[in-house]
Amino acid sequence: MKAIVFDKELKLDNNYPKPAPQKGEALIRVTLAGICNTDYEITKGYMGYVGVLGHEFVGVVEEVNGDDKSLVGKRVVAEISYGCEDPNCEWCAKKNYRHCPNRHTIGIWKKDGCMAEYITVPTNILFEVPENVTDEQAVFVEPLAAACEILEQLHIEPMSKIVVLGDGKLGLTTALTLNAHNLDVLLVGKHQNKLDIAKAQGVKTKLLNEFKIEKKYDIVVEATGSASGFETSMALTKPRGVLVLKSTVASGKELNLAPIVIDEITVLGSRCGQFPPALRLLKNNRIDFTPFITKTYSIDDALEAFEANKAKESLKILIKI
Amino acid sequence: MKAIVFDKELKLDNNYPKPAPQKGEALIRVTLAGICNTDYEITKGYMGYVGVLGHEFVGVVEEVNGDDKSLVGKRVVAEISYGCEDPNCEWCAKKNYRHCPNRHTIGIWKKDGCMAEYITVPTNILFEVPENVTDEQAVFVEPLAAACEILEQLHIEPMSKIVVLGDGKLGLTTALTLNAHNLDVLLVGKHQNKLDIAKAQGVKTKLLNEFKIEKKYDIVVEATGSASGFETSMALTKPRGVLVLKSTVASGKELNLAPIVIDEITVLGSRCGQFPPALRLLKNNRIDFTPFITKTYSIDDALEAFEANKAKESLKILIKI
Repeated sequence: MKAIVFDKELKLDNNYPKPAPQKGEALIRVTLAGICNTDYEITKGYMGYVGVLGHEFVGVVEEVNGDDKSLVGKRVVAEISYGCEDPNCEWCAKKNYRHCPNRHTIGIWKKDGCMAEYITVPTNILFEVPENVTDEQAVFVEPLAAACEILEQLHIEPMSKIVVLGDGKLGLTTALTLNAHNLDVLLVGKHQNKLDIAKAQGVKTKLLNEFKIEKKYDIVVEATGSASGFETSMALTKPRGVLVLKSTVASGKELNLAPIVIDEITVLGSRCGQFPPALRLLKNNRIDFTPFITKTYSIDDALEAFEANKAKESLKILIKI
Repeated sequence: MKAIVFDKELKLDNNYPKPAPQKGEALIRVTLAGICNTDYEITKGYMGYVGVLGHEFVGVVEEVNGDDKSLVGKRVVAEISYGCEDPNCEWCAKKNYRHCPNRHTIGIWKKDGCMAEYITVPTNILFEVPENVTDEQAVFVEPLAAACEILEQLHIEPMSKIVVLGDGKLGLTTALTLNAHNLDVLLVGKHQNKLDIAKAQGVKTKLLNEFKIEKKYDIVVEATGSASGFETSMALTKPRGVLVLKSTVASGKELNLAPIVIDEITVLGSRCGQFPPALRLLKNNRIDFTPFITKTYSIDDALEAFEANKAKESLKILIKI
């Protein structure tokens, strides 16, 4: 089968072995996949991963290895991690597979990804896509779930003042998600055209150079992925406020953590999320991801797609399988 | 009056002007004061503070400028910050003066400290010392309140596994406080003689070089004040756990914050606390601070006291006024 593989270099392999579903797994024919910045990081060596890339996808179940065949023929999405299922694993017991110490993560850790004609996935992390949600919306469910994760971790009071810093995919998705929950959110970024995507769906926006840095926000979401973004976020978080750290790139710089103690700030790390609330948002048309799509490429043009993803002005690059 | 003053250098001033209580203030004759590491930091330039040092003390009210004279003659302690009392100040409205942006902080910021024969303090931050609590115990109420602050900020479940890193005054006080609340706490440090102070009062202890670094603690309290302590704390905090940052010194080093996001850790800054719960612990004899006292000096020997405070083996140095 065709597959986009990273092994020292990125390549399109036309003869990658088609996987066979193990007990409890489904074989899925992938129809659409998205390029995430993590995929790009992997091509630079992140996690030392070698294999089929990709963890954002929609597909159709062709086969199930197990007694329950009800998923066959269904359009599905899959959470990105699955656990060890050891009866003593506290994380698997809570179905919080993304923290299981022996987890597999699709296209990132010990498990081939979705940028291929077929993928096999344990059925317990599959979710059926509601009929009214197109593939082009459903392919955003994973980053949308990551935005919803903030609501799982944090009780946000309706009167809280929230600022989201960064107008890339992560910042836009987070601002749109909080806005969809009737929260008071301001998105701050450097690109008017990106801010306008959120603005068109009701989010308040501000260009960074027109934005006054004041220690007055109850909740600040760091979604720039830069060390300076972390410092700006600290300067925006009021005493006893919460700084949500959404991007993993803020590192390797000398950081002064004293303000965290002096202002008793909470820094909350936030990563992936569960799919059901994200699918509910999509089903109810609360967010439209159409303006996120910069271009859709055929899998045959995968290398070109990865090149396009590097461009500053790109948002989401999709790959049609 | 006699006062220990920092103004470019540390000195004992025998003719410092005796303060007069303003409206709403009490004049207090100080009987006993404690040297805190913050005082030492101030002598190295911290906060740019100039004036009488000290914020840990016990004294007797001699005079009140106001209608209510009931405090006169009472033995008291004082919280370290008082607010602007502007009716629009949200922090003053909550009596959370330590976050008021226009606060004064005794011996640290815009207000003379307690290492003098007299100090004036607004009566609304004064607390009467229970009769059965000696001056030598009451003088620890401020650092004890700072340890209690963790319990104000965080709901700690009875089954939580807690480790406190650092066996200085801060770590010892925190471990003893959590232990006094029937919590499962392990104190880890480098000095057997300091660990033994906590052990004698029922705390589990471990020498750092005999302690296995594992990502298995629900709550980790960083009380070493070193950047390496912060990194060790991260390596001890389990996914979705809480790292309580108690010391302000962990800064200026290249820190990798990615594990905070990947493991969805909460970093909680924690500073000063309110006095009533700390006074309750003292009244009920839940912690004995006697073994903390390295030596008590007369105010006339203040410079010698500050020298003694620098010694690695010192814990609390007291100054009898």
